[in-house]
Amino acid sequence: MPLVTIDDIRSAATRIRAFVVRTPLIPALWADGDRPLWIKPENLQSIGAFKVRGAFNAIGNLDESVRTRGVVAYSSGNHAQAVAYAAAVFAIPAHIVMPRETPAIKVDATRAHGAEVVLCEAGQRERVAADLLEQTGGVLVPPFDHPDIIAGQGTIGLEIAEDLPTVDNVLVPVSGGGLASGIGTAIKALCPQARVIGVEPELAADTAEALAAGHRVDWSIEDRNRTIADGLRSQPSELTFAHLQQVLDGVITVSENEIRAAVRELARRAHLVSEPSGAVALAAYRRGETPPGRTVMVLSGGNIEPAMLGEILVG
Amino acid sequence: MPLVTIDDIRSAATRIRAFVVRTPLIPALWADGDRPLWIKPENLQSIGAFKVRGAFNAIGNLDESVRTRGVVAYSSGNHAQAVAYAAAVFAIPAHIVMPRETPAIKVDATRAHGAEVVLCEAGQRERVAADLLEQTGGVLVPPFDHPDIIAGQGTIGLEIAEDLPTVDNVLVPVSGGGLASGIGTAIKALCPQARVIGVEPELAADTAEALAAGHRVDWSIEDRNRTIADGLRSQPSELTFAHLQQVLDGVITVSENEIRAAVRELARRAHLVSEPSGAVALAAYRRGETPPGRTVMVLSGGNIEPAMLGEILVG
Repeated sequence: MPLVTIDDIRSAATRIRAFVVRTPLIPALWADGDRPLWIKPENLQSIGAFKVRGAFNAIGNLDESVRTRGVVAYSSGNHAQAVAYAAAVFAIPAHIVMPRETPAIKVDATRAHGAEVVLCEAGQRERVAADLLEQTGGVLVPPFDHPDIIAGQGTIGLEIAEDLPTVDNVLVPVSGGGLASGIGTAIKALCPQARVIGVEPELAADTAEALAAGHRVDWSIEDRNRTIADGLRSQPSELTFAHLQQVLDGVITVSENEIRAAVRELARRAHLVSEPSGAVALAAYRRGETPPGRTVMVLSGGNIEPAMLGEILVG
Repeated sequence: MPLVTIDDIRSAATRIRAFVVRTPLIPALWADGDRPLWIKPENLQSIGAFKVRGAFNAIGNLDESVRTRGVVAYSSGNHAQAVAYAAAVFAIPAHIVMPRETPAIKVDATRAHGAEVVLCEAGQRERVAADLLEQTGGVLVPPFDHPDIIAGQGTIGLEIAEDLPTVDNVLVPVSGGGLASGIGTAIKALCPQARVIGVEPELAADTAEALAAGHRVDWSIEDRNRTIADGLRSQPSELTFAHLQQVLDGVITVSENEIRAAVRELARRAHLVSEPSGAVALAAYRRGETPPGRTVMVLSGGNIEPAMLGEILVG
């Protein structure tokens, strides 16, 4: 299966430059002396998460004649807002399929970008999306299972390599694996000395198990839904798993309490609001299992309910 | 009185480049359509506030033979940590005079950088600092009343002008006035079309009154201490007031409730933790008194007690 290349990621960087924030690496002076830490704060993207990178690359790479017919996506999370926002910038229609139980705040945020939200029953989203694709003649923008999405997320790795070419460790959350596939591909091409380490919640550690087994494994959605890190409940596709096998040096799993502590530490020490999924790389760093050296953690997103953040802050 | 020039600010930028974060402008998509808003997130500096810029410029500009004798500062806030951190980087001694009632968390943070903290009674800090200067032969690094401090803070204005040369409005918190003097000087030199607007809490609005009167006015410290924005309780010196008269197009004052709402909005929408003093520029933007056009708000710092942030988030 052909994998995404560094050239694909460079093309993506050119394509999305005008639309995304070029996030800086923030040195975390409060970290350990022998493992200096930098934060890549993707929570500062316009919709609060890295997902804009893949969305702008995928939509920007469509032929204009195709793009004008619009896009369809299914997501209850950050991908929904990313596609809705990118579609608004390109002034094309967007239909976003969301489960009926999606919190109103996320539905409203997606609608605020001008997207048409189509609510559906659990387990129906792929059928509903297929119907919409047929009705509209639009294009599906998948959350991770596409080379253009992987290449878009990979621009984060390109920027890390530009800003800290001597990086030793890169810690990246893993869910569907688009983010880790892209970043890993860029880092392995540009900083071959660096380790790329995935991070998963213990309660959704299918990729850790799959890499050890040498093939994909399936955890039930009921199991994966137990973690507070609601952005890390997906599993790699065949395409992303092939990348992860190639680029990951390991996976660290973290507990729910460690995730909460990382959200708290990022707010208190780095002045950055992270969602639980966005903070897992700090939780992994704090476990102390990464080797010494210059470490970058990818803070993937910041969309947390204010009440949950408030509770974690004082807890 | 000679004022700081754009050349001084350019020199400062060169001097401090290796030590401070080059913060990006973050577009705030959730803002009003006819007044697009960008955030300059100085809470992402290593000690959580812009003060590192002035501290590195002032200490970096000392003759090495003088600098090695060390530095002295008095502050209970972000300036203390900035001087302590800069002194640690230059590997020189730092004595920081703090009032005895300073919260332990701030004393500890200053000590963590290796500074010697000298606690003193209220009203004694200048005498204690003078004694320390005599004993150590060191140099005083004032919080705002010095051209090198003003030029260091002015590098924020230089970066705004580089990133958004067509800016129409720049909103800057005003306390001792070093930040607004520096930013205003840079913006007036590089973006002469832009308005530079100071922001003060209503409860510490001495500069608004002073600029209207055409001369400095004195508000009692008891009055100024009423505001939650504990970083905005100082008053301009002769030097900074001369700059403010030259570069400010106006001052907007904001209420305590507006400040709390701005802290909440920055955490919820921009995923940035701000202290009350750091959020006042958003409060001013939300009053709707600024003219239309591209607006930059300076988020000056993020050092807020977690319990206060938690309370504001759910409040």
